[in-house]
This record gives sequence, C-alpha cells and structure tokens, in this order.
Amino acid sequence: MALVNRKFVLASRPQGPAGPENFRLIEEPVRSPGEGEVLVRNRFLSLDPYMRGRMNAGKSYAPPQPVGEVMIGGTVGEVIAARRDGFEVGDLVVGMGGWQEYSLSDGKALRKIPQPGIAIEAWLGPVGMPGVTAWYGITRIIAPKPGETVVVSAATGAVGTVAGQLAKLAGARVIGIAGGPAKCRYAVEELGYDACIDHRAADFAARLADAADKGIDGVFENVGGEPLNRCMGMLNTFARIAICGLVASGYDGSPTPLSNVGPVLVSRATMQGFIVSDHMNIWPQALEELARHVAASRIRWRETIAEGIEAAPAAFFEMLKGGNFGKQLVRLT
Amino acid sequence: MALVNRKFVLASRPQGPAGPENFRLIEEPVRSPGEGEVLVRNRFLSLDPYMRGRMNAGKSYAPPQPVGEVMIGGTVGEVIAARRDGFEVGDLVVGMGGWQEYSLSDGKALRKIPQPGIAIEAWLGPVGMPGVTAWYGITRIIAPKPGETVVVSAATGAVGTVAGQLAKLAGARVIGIAGGPAKCRYAVEELGYDACIDHRAADFAARLADAADKGIDGVFENVGGEPLNRCMGMLNTFARIAICGLVASGYDGSPTPLSNVGPVLVSRATMQGFIVSDHMNIWPQALEELARHVAASRIRWRETIAEGIEAAPAAFFEMLKGGNFGKQLVRLT
Repeated sequence: MALVNRKFVLASRPQGPAGPENFRLIEEPVRSPGEGEVLVRNRFLSLDPYMRGRMNAGKSYAPPQPVGEVMIGGTVGEVIAARRDGFEVGDLVVGMGGWQEYSLSDGKALRKIPQPGIAIEAWLGPVGMPGVTAWYGITRIIAPKPGETVVVSAATGAVGTVAGQLAKLAGARVIGIAGGPAKCRYAVEELGYDACIDHRAADFAARLADAADKGIDGVFENVGGEPLNRCMGMLNTFARIAICGLVASGYDGSPTPLSNVGPVLVSRATMQGFIVSDHMNIWPQALEELARHVAASRIRWRETIAEGIEAAPAAFFEMLKGGNFGKQLVRLT
Repeated sequence: MALVNRKFVLASRPQGPAGPENFRLIEEPVRSPGEGEVLVRNRFLSLDPYMRGRMNAGKSYAPPQPVGEVMIGGTVGEVIAARRDGFEVGDLVVGMGGWQEYSLSDGKALRKIPQPGIAIEAWLGPVGMPGVTAWYGITRIIAPKPGETVVVSAATGAVGTVAGQLAKLAGARVIGIAGGPAKCRYAVEELGYDACIDHRAADFAARLADAADKGIDGVFENVGGEPLNRCMGMLNTFARIAICGLVASGYDGSPTPLSNVGPVLVSRATMQGFIVSDHMNIWPQALEELARHVAASRIRWRETIAEGIEAAPAAFFEMLKGGNFGKQLVRLT
C-alpha cells in the first residue's frame, strides 16, 4: 500500500485576520491499519464556519484545534482497509476525518451511511451536521406554529437552507436574508421561501419591514450584526431567537454588539445559543426525518465544490466571506 | 359618607425625561358603592418601575396608561363598604387600586389577604407582585443548582431582595449588584448574599470578576447597562439570564445596547424576558411558598415609605433613580 496522504495542519493561530498562511500542507505515507483500526479514503470534506472558532486559542464552545495537528473537519469516505469487526472494504462512512485524503482511526466515531438513494455528500450537509443544526434550532427552539413568521439569516447556506425549509414544512411564513440577488432568487424560487431580502441592498431595512409586516416570531440567526438588530425591532410577543452562529463579526475576537436588548423584555422573547454537539441524543431522530425529507425532495439543497485538498484553505476563507453558494465541500479523492 | 378621594391621574405623556409635571392631583367626592360594588380605603400604594413604561405611548408589554385616568398601581386596603357577596367591612384586600386613597370596584380584581401574621404591606412586596416576579425568574428561568453562581442586579430592590434570597435557598452562591456601600452591606449582612458589589465603585468590574471567580450561571437582571455587559463576559456554559427589567436606560425610549451577544452562542446561554402577569397560573403556588418563607423569616425585606398620596410622584422618580432602599411604598390613609 504505497499510498500518500496529503493533509492540512494548523500551522499557527491567527494574529488578527486568519488566512491561508495559518495552514500548512503535509505529505506523508499512509500507514496500514493495525488490529482494531479502519482506513478510510475520504471523498468529500465539509468546510464549516465553526472551524474558524477552533483556530483561536480563546474560550469558545469547544477546545481549540491543536497547532501542528490535522485540521478538524467532517468527511464522507470509503473504507479501503479494515481490521475491525463491523467494517468491510467498500463501506461508505461519515465521520470527522479532518482536512486530509486518508484517515486511520479506531472506527468508533465513524457512522456507516445507513440509506442509499441520497447523494453521498448529503451526509455532510442536509443529512449531516448542518441539517441537524437546523433541525434543532427550528424544532426545539423556534418551534414555529402555522402562520407565524420566521426569519432565517444566511438563508441559502448549508444550515439556513434546511432551517428555512423545515420552517416552511411547519407551516410558517419564512423570510430569508442572503447576500446578493442570485441567492435571494434561489431562496424563493427553489427553496420555497416566501421572501428573501438582500442584506447588501440599500433599502434592506425597509424591505425586511415590508416582508415582515406581521412582525417576527422566530429568528434563526447564523450571522449577527445589523440584520439581527433590525429583526430585534420587529419581534412579536414570545418571539424565539435561536443563535446558531455569529459569522458577521465574532471569529476574529471582535465583539458582536446588539444595538438594543430591550425587545427581549418588551416582547418577553427568548434568545438561546446552541451547538448541536451538545444534543447528541436528538441526532438519530433528526437524521431519520431529514433523510426522509431529502429523499422525497421536500428539502432541496445545493453545494459549492472545491477540487482537491490543496483548494481547501482558499475555499474556507471564501466561505467565511459568503462567497460560496449552498454547502461548501472539497472533493478529496 | 362625606369622604373625599385624592388621586393622581396621568396628565401628559413624557416628552423626554418624565417628571412630576406629568401627573395631576385631583380631589373628588367618594361615591357610595352601588349594587355589586366594593369600596376600599387604600392603606398602602406600591410604586414600581413598570409604571414608568406605562406612561409612554409606545409599544410596551402592556397597554399604555390612559391620559386623564388614575395612575395604575397595586394597593392594600380595607373594605369600608360592600354591596357584593363575599366582602365584608373590615376585610383586608390587595388589588390594583391605583394612585388614590379610595377605590370603588366590582371587587373581581380584589384578593382577600389570606394569611395573618405577615405585615399588611408585605402583600405589595415579597408576597406580592415583586415577590412573584422574583419567584418566576429564579424558579422557572434560572433554576439554580446548588453551588452555581447567580448574580442579582438591583439586589436590595423589591424584586431583587426576594430573587437573591430564593437563589440562596436553592443553594446557589449569590452575588448582588447594588448602588452604594449601605445597600451592599445590607445585602450581605441582612439578606445573606455571599457578596454584593457597588456598581458605582471605580473598580466595579474587577470586584465582580473576583466575586464570580467560578463564572456566572444565572443572571437575574433588573437594570441592564454596563453591569449586564460585564456579566455577559463571565457566563458559564448553559447560563440563564432572566430579563425582568432594564431600568438603566429603557424607559425614556432610549435603546439598551448589549456590548456583545457572542457569549450567548459561545456559552449556549438562554436569555429570556418575562413579565409575571403573563403567568397568572403560577401565582397561587408562588404566593403560598413566599408567604411561608416570609412568615418564617427565611425571606427578609425592608421598605421605604413615603407619607401621603401627595408624596407619590417625588417618591416614584426617586425610586427610578435608585434612591429608595427596599420596597418603595406610599402610606395613603
């Protein structure tokens, strides 16, 4: 087995804005599995905003990514050698293989893909961590009632795409917020949002107020910043705000101010931050429901695929700026 | 019955800061109760921060106080004439009698004071709306576990006093925030707070960080502003922030900014605004528990009493500035 693995390690923690110089590409021979080990050829790597937080040393919701080790990341791949019961060559698995082409592990964190009929990379998107994140925020925090108005920021991102469609399936009126007319058009025409407002538009605030003319009952927040401030000013009584991400400003260590917390009191609203890895118990139910929705095309999605491991850093930073469209993946092998 | 009632009506809505000129004192003869009516001589009027919000025309959690009508307010008093089954002369009752010496009503909103052995005015404080507010925020939102750290702002106010002692009874470490050394000393020595920090002290932030050296699990917030911002920076995982009031800045229509909403995500915290009148179903249980605690001196409290209805406006604005110590009352008759 003269295979060579290429992997990105975190070379240094960002001082100021993060960039490709914080990563280093390493080549090394692939070791054969020992007793109890499984070797996976990773087909797709998922790039996600949480990774930016892990690059920092400071307090976040997870331990920092160690410097010098392979970057954390979700992967789908194929078992190519196995010395562990329960795995066979050819098994398709999803796991945290990291930013690398091959991963060797004890297999405990690998899940065999349970269901045919769904594109393999969907298990990193709508039927993976982003989908379960959306499912938790919508079903367990916002819990929209039919006719309520739910706003979803980053509306066409990997998480927002699923959040918006789950809110629609619950009978809510769903307003997306996205960057640029193409994403907004896609949200309405393909994903079924009732409206989608371009946060770059000069008249963003007026258009959001117009679309949410009955007020806002739920906010699925991925971004923070001015759009969230605007939503806060339109909350209905007992509104629920699920804080899933604050990509706009948080990762470089800068604070994410809220211009007015008053509506939390006036509207008796609930604002709840959540991380789906705190709620492992809901994954089986969430994945089962999401897989059914995706297989039946009730949840649609799209992806941006970067080609080859060497493309990962640039694709990652482009995604953080909103340059991707849908789920950001890297095709590895 | 040649009784004369003196009452304050809202004369005008505040333009800019509110002041005594927004109220007008009116004298009028007391009408005898008609069939089905109850006449109460009010002994004590409760002054509470929520009244400031009612003076505004804008959206708040309740309809505005109508201009020209008697100001809303909780009262305890004595039935002096009754033409309604269930009430007799001499009954002590608690209700929303308003800023006036006598109130005539159909009695439906009057509750007979169920328990002797507690000072009558306690039914406006620890065994009244402020107490139930504290009970809801502590037991239903923060739900402190033994050993957790809970911060209570306006720690010696009518609500904070009870919130802090309920948190102590739940086994939490309780840190108060109050204005001035006398209130802080009282909080620790009389109410049993583990620490109380003077928000006017130059080294407030350092002292709060020192007192909360294990981080903060619960915040019972009455005030907002810089102390809340400081608490946000010290949240532990799964912290709960009960927003009961934002007296610091909210009532004149100015926003209450939060310097960083990021900790809600990082700590997966929940921030919940609440108004106790949304939760009438919990009042019987809360009052029963509070009455037991007060009767047994497990909940202690103190009051500032202004003498006579004519003193109400000045006492009200003094309270909004934090000039009172404990529950602010007006002795009416």
